[in-house]
Amino acid sequence: MAEVKKERLNIAILGHRFMGRAHSNGWAQTTKFFDPAFEPVLKVACGRDEADLRAFAGRWGWEEIETDWRRVIERDDIDAVDISLPTFLHAETAIAAAEAGKHVFCEKPFAIDLAEAEAMLAAAEKAGVVHYLNHNYRRCPAVVLARRLIDAGEIGEIHHWRGAYQQSWLVNPDHPIDWKLRKATAAAGPLWDLGSHAIDLAHYLVGDIDAIGCRMKNFITERPLADAPGKRGEVEVECAALMTTEFANGALGSIETTRYATGRRNRHTFEIYGGEGALAWDMEDMNRLQFFSQKDPEHARGFRDILATERCHDYVKNWWPPGHIIGYEHGFVHAAADFLDAVAAKRAGAAENPITPDFRDGVRIARVLDAALVSAGSESRFVAVAKG
Amino acid sequence: MAEVKKERLNIAILGHRFMGRAHSNGWAQTTKFFDPAFEPVLKVACGRDEADLRAFAGRWGWEEIETDWRRVIERDDIDAVDISLPTFLHAETAIAAAEAGKHVFCEKPFAIDLAEAEAMLAAAEKAGVVHYLNHNYRRCPAVVLARRLIDAGEIGEIHHWRGAYQQSWLVNPDHPIDWKLRKATAAAGPLWDLGSHAIDLAHYLVGDIDAIGCRMKNFITERPLADAPGKRGEVEVECAALMTTEFANGALGSIETTRYATGRRNRHTFEIYGGEGALAWDMEDMNRLQFFSQKDPEHARGFRDILATERCHDYVKNWWPPGHIIGYEHGFVHAAADFLDAVAAKRAGAAENPITPDFRDGVRIARVLDAALVSAGSESRFVAVAKG
Amino acid sequence: MAEVKKERLNIAILGHRFMGRAHSNGWAQTTKFFDPAFEPVLKVACGRDEADLRAFAGRWGWEEIETDWRRVIERDDIDAVDISLPTFLHAETAIAAAEAGKHVFCEKPFAIDLAEAEAMLAAAEKAGVVHYLNHNYRRCPAVVLARRLIDAGEIGEIHHWRGAYQQSWLVNPDHPIDWKLRKATAAAGPLWDLGSHAIDLAHYLVGDIDAIGCRMKNFITERPLADAPGKRGEVEVECAALMTTEFANGALGSIETTRYATGRRNRHTFEIYGGEGALAWDMEDMNRLQFFSQKDPEHARGFRDILATERCHDYVKNWWPPGHIIGYEHGFVHAAADFLDAVAAKRAGAAENPITPDFRDGVRIARVLDAALVSAGSESRFVAVAKG
Amino acid sequence: MAEVKKERLNIAILGHRFMGRAHSNGWAQTTKFFDPAFEPVLKVACGRDEADLRAFAGRWGWEEIETDWRRVIERDDIDAVDISLPTFLHAETAIAAAEAGKHVFCEKPFAIDLAEAEAMLAAAEKAGVVHYLNHNYRRCPAVVLARRLIDAGEIGEIHHWRGAYQQSWLVNPDHPIDWKLRKATAAAGPLWDLGSHAIDLAHYLVGDIDAIGCRMKNFITERPLADAPGKRGEVEVECAALMTTEFANGALGSIETTRYATGRRNRHTFEIYGGEGALAWDMEDMNRLQFFSQKDPEHARGFRDILATERCHDYVKNWWPPGHIIGYEHGFVHAAADFLDAVAAKRAGAAENPITPDFRDGVRIARVLDAALVSAGSESRFVAVAKG
Repeated sequence: MAEVKKERLNIAILGHRFMGRAHSNGWAQTTKFFDPAFEPVLKVACGRDEADLRAFAGRWGWEEIETDWRRVIERDDIDAVDISLPTFLHAETAIAAAEAGKHVFCEKPFAIDLAEAEAMLAAAEKAGVVHYLNHNYRRCPAVVLARRLIDAGEIGEIHHWRGAYQQSWLVNPDHPIDWKLRKATAAAGPLWDLGSHAIDLAHYLVGDIDAIGCRMKNFITERPLADAPGKRGEVEVECAALMTTEFANGALGSIETTRYATGRRNRHTFEIYGGEGALAWDMEDMNRLQFFSQKDPEHARGFRDILATERCHDYVKNWWPPGHIIGYEHGFVHAAADFLDAVAAKRAGAAENPITPDFRDGVRIARVLDAALVSAGSESRFVAVAKG
Repeated sequence: MAEVKKERLNIAILGHRFMGRAHSNGWAQTTKFFDPAFEPVLKVACGRDEADLRAFAGRWGWEEIETDWRRVIERDDIDAVDISLPTFLHAETAIAAAEAGKHVFCEKPFAIDLAEAEAMLAAAEKAGVVHYLNHNYRRCPAVVLARRLIDAGEIGEIHHWRGAYQQSWLVNPDHPIDWKLRKATAAAGPLWDLGSHAIDLAHYLVGDIDAIGCRMKNFITERPLADAPGKRGEVEVECAALMTTEFANGALGSIETTRYATGRRNRHTFEIYGGEGALAWDMEDMNRLQFFSQKDPEHARGFRDILATERCHDYVKNWWPPGHIIGYEHGFVHAAADFLDAVAAKRAGAAENPITPDFRDGVRIARVLDAALVSAGSESRFVAVAKG
Repeated sequence: MAEVKKERLNIAILGHRFMGRAHSNGWAQTTKFFDPAFEPVLKVACGRDEADLRAFAGRWGWEEIETDWRRVIERDDIDAVDISLPTFLHAETAIAAAEAGKHVFCEKPFAIDLAEAEAMLAAAEKAGVVHYLNHNYRRCPAVVLARRLIDAGEIGEIHHWRGAYQQSWLVNPDHPIDWKLRKATAAAGPLWDLGSHAIDLAHYLVGDIDAIGCRMKNFITERPLADAPGKRGEVEVECAALMTTEFANGALGSIETTRYATGRRNRHTFEIYGGEGALAWDMEDMNRLQFFSQKDPEHARGFRDILATERCHDYVKNWWPPGHIIGYEHGFVHAAADFLDAVAAKRAGAAENPITPDFRDGVRIARVLDAALVSAGSESRFVAVAKG
Repeated sequence: MAEVKKERLNIAILGHRFMGRAHSNGWAQTTKFFDPAFEPVLKVACGRDEADLRAFAGRWGWEEIETDWRRVIERDDIDAVDISLPTFLHAETAIAAAEAGKHVFCEKPFAIDLAEAEAMLAAAEKAGVVHYLNHNYRRCPAVVLARRLIDAGEIGEIHHWRGAYQQSWLVNPDHPIDWKLRKATAAAGPLWDLGSHAIDLAHYLVGDIDAIGCRMKNFITERPLADAPGKRGEVEVECAALMTTEFANGALGSIETTRYATGRRNRHTFEIYGGEGALAWDMEDMNRLQFFSQKDPEHARGFRDILATERCHDYVKNWWPPGHIIGYEHGFVHAAADFLDAVAAKRAGAAENPITPDFRDGVRIARVLDAALVSAGSESRFVAVAKG
């Protein structure tokens, strides 16, 4: 097809498992449904298992493969690095990428600890690159609608955040120990993996958290080892973590995270109660937002079940007609489009990092999680969250 | 009608407001839909506002009225005393009634503090009377079903209790200060009023609580005084209280209580997650129980929406055919029937108090609430609950 | 209690089974929760099984019993007759009662056929008595709210009524043949029993039906006989009946009735779609009304889940505080209160029959059902409904 | 990437509007998430508006464009033709494609009338090409699960199908007349557009329809003309169509289709009731299936809310982990994968057309719709559906 082509932006991806697929799909779909400032070029995919990596690259159209991430980052023709690796590999790669002047699109959880998080932010800011942290739920149309209703004053002063992120994959006692159940690679259990998402949404919709109490629990302490058949090992991270939070704006919050909520596969839910209204959302029913308004006449008040697929709802108009729902992976497509636009904005001279959540949010979340760990180690007493 | 009549049991009621009505209806309906061991006779109603009291007695068929509760308790012809008074009046009246040999049917919250609670239990046990504490949700058919499923092992070892009791009547800043917002009369805010219900259900369905952390919050600290027009006073009790709990059986719990949950009028809800299944319930939809079973084939697992109106469900077969729901007040009717049977069991020589929840449960709840108050005053750190 | 008593109205009830209980409860509760113009006196209960009848009267407080309904109607001290009998006994008793000058409170379905219905109405009108037909769902607060929203123009011109009344008790092939499965006693199957309710609500909320098509179906044609153990007989009435309707105001309707909807115990549901909004309701969740409004801003449109337990909702304020639901039998209490007030209005000179639905509605429904039968016998072609 | 490539299959697409996008996405995504027998090559896109077509092709990666569909079909290098055109253009193009030996992937509604439908099927069968009719809802995992439960006997003998396909875009009186509101281009209104989908699902899940009654209605009869600003024209097709059906297996059905269901954007729903269980589904919540089983113990029966995202559910395991929902467009991806496999099966010698629904289903649906039209013109009396 002869057609005036957009400028291209060369992407390298580190990682080719679950998140490698989700991110690749994000890049691949972004120009089909959106009109971002650049056409992303899937230049090189990097991983350690060459056979798998080759199949992955072939399937998704990555032009080249590479098994050494440092060589990827050294390449002059790479504009942006997409980090789809396990948590413990984020800091080293993200810092190196930023220092090499690459824009960074980083999967969550951000980092192993607050120190890493701060180093990552410092590197990105020093390098002046675009930095993005992929808490993808912010780009779900129904969640954006929640934010718009709050910003418009429809909820009033917020009194309560009641959140939970519940999974159930550890209810099975035969589920083996992998990187997600080891402290060195995952930092913590659901507190890190699920809690970081929940805290990001709380930050996005309510604001800063001043203080936190956290209770952790282990239900099954020994499991088969994934990498040593017949042997068992200790589960090093918590099975569940419950947080209670005080927000800077006076709201009170609760966040429950667990991998033992039988019957809940990926239930990420929040309820928000304010002086003028209320909101509720659940990732398992992600296209809908529940909205209650005190402004409705008394006889006609009730939670409205809004199907956020109208033309006026963010992102979703680019997909299908009203009433046609979107799924899990669409948030990654939205993120890819916004990231590409952010690079353009940066090149056009934006002083601030032109996309959120970014590495500042990563640090902000890490401060909360760090305080939660301190609380969990101190009889769950309330602990102040470090200020920015 | 010439008909062989049952033996009668003479009831006196103290209090004639909201709970006076609900209890009177319980006594009045109990012989129409159930076959309790006694026919309750609505002998005397006691209150301080004589005009209101007279109207109340006329409406409900209380034979006599009395404005001095001590004279009621002194009467030889009274078999049982129904305490439908504000919390701060429970201990004195209940103890006096027990000492006078009256069986006691007591509204919740049980007492102002643990000392009162223990004194009430001691008096009832010493007197050998039947004692009942009206946490009425235990007699909702769907809640009884939850208990039966747990007892039958359908849920397995319980890992999580996620509870909330949410109301919204204090969102209105013009709502005045009445006895429920004063420490001397109510002891605490939603922690006491709603939390006692939630803890009772947690006790009933999960078991003893070993330790607790509690966070309280005040959103509006000054309000008009109900009894001094034009003047304002301080709200003495918390607006919301969030608890995290460790159960003796290893489960982890959360209980959220508030009067600021806009859009929730009387939402008393719990989720229970165990190794074999899960349950969820909501008082605003009280005839239904959600039940998830790992025993279902994998492709057909999902929360079952059980309408607990079948002949095999407790209590409800006495009302209407399947599919015909019951309402809020029915739990009081069930309690009245069970209380009458308990008196018969006692007279027949039962060693134990033959009904639950009773004053032992009142003490058990008071110990948890007491520990919650200590926690709330100690940076929300975890506090051990006193043992029985 | 010395108290100024209301004037009394003496009631006689014919029938003492399911409806006898529901009606007795209605009379008993009405003065406890409402303030009707009269205090109803449960004077005499009439039935043929004397032992059962005696127990029934004892339980509910009917002062006397009688086994011959004609003797009841002849009594001068009876003001109103409550007909809680099977359908085929309605006409004779209602006409005799009216002719004797008794006000009539009649259970549904109204009559065996249109001729009976018209005779009943003529008798009641000639006698000038109050006549009421107990389609109780009209007195469910959420249904009244639906009517108020329609009257206020919130739904706009109505285009669609989509209704269903689904039960499942005949799915069991061992369910025996009783009066409800015989043409002589029941006239028809779900068309009559459930369809009359559904049509009454359609009349109440949409208006007159001009024409109708009906399709009937029999799934199980032979069953055990209830009154002849070991023998089987033919099911004489349809198992399911589906109606399509044209309303006088231009709306199109569908009404599905069946006793074979496995999983639905008593699901009576409607959806209404108009130019400005929409409504949906389900008897199994009877305290709630779903309301959609085009007037909401586009981004915040959704069906509102209204819990109709607020002070501003009809009837329900007389029961409990907001958020406390009522059950199936409450509609009978509301009907009893309104009937007593209607008698007072009549005595005060009301020209019109001061309560609805009444025998005119009974005739109106019978005309629709009659046309439905004609259609069912004519390849389901559309048949005009006779005009009033 | 050096990688062993699959054999390629060259696709041509006719049409580039809504369905052109949905189909293009289907082809593009199919090899990323599935492993079909061929790699589809997006060879040529055909349409009449060259500028739009060029943009479309550029966005989706169609290698060439063409404005004359006959030239596309004449090309030797095209293996399969994807017909994403308005209904009235299906027959001519599909027949020509089949005659040219191209496999045909055809959007619904199949044809303007039964004659066209039969000609299309005859052409495809004579040519021996693969033919597929895109009733995409059959490839929704929850719908496939419904079929599997029925096939496994979990529902028992089916008594009822209660279906509806409700949209609301015509509630706005300013919506103009376009091809969908003209008889020559659309054949009929929602009967054709929505009813064909509903009937296809009924065929898939229940079986053949023997006879049908249909009622049509027009609410707004005149609208602005899309192609003549300022002028108005007559709406030539019905606004709503209600069908009642008799299935060959004895089930009774209802299907309601409308474009006037305010508040419903794309609600395609069915309820199935059988002797052993029941099912319910709604496209607006397409990842879930409601399943009721009589085999559950009586106290624990209820509709199970199955989130069909488990590894054992069809198609969905190729996407994301359990609990991560998919959206509207995924059914097109599933169809594309199955179509490619069908071509391989055909080349391998399959005697039967190796994919459903196909043109035989198109004829089967057309027969039902044809009978519905006859009924609608004959006072809605029941009309026999022509046999195959």
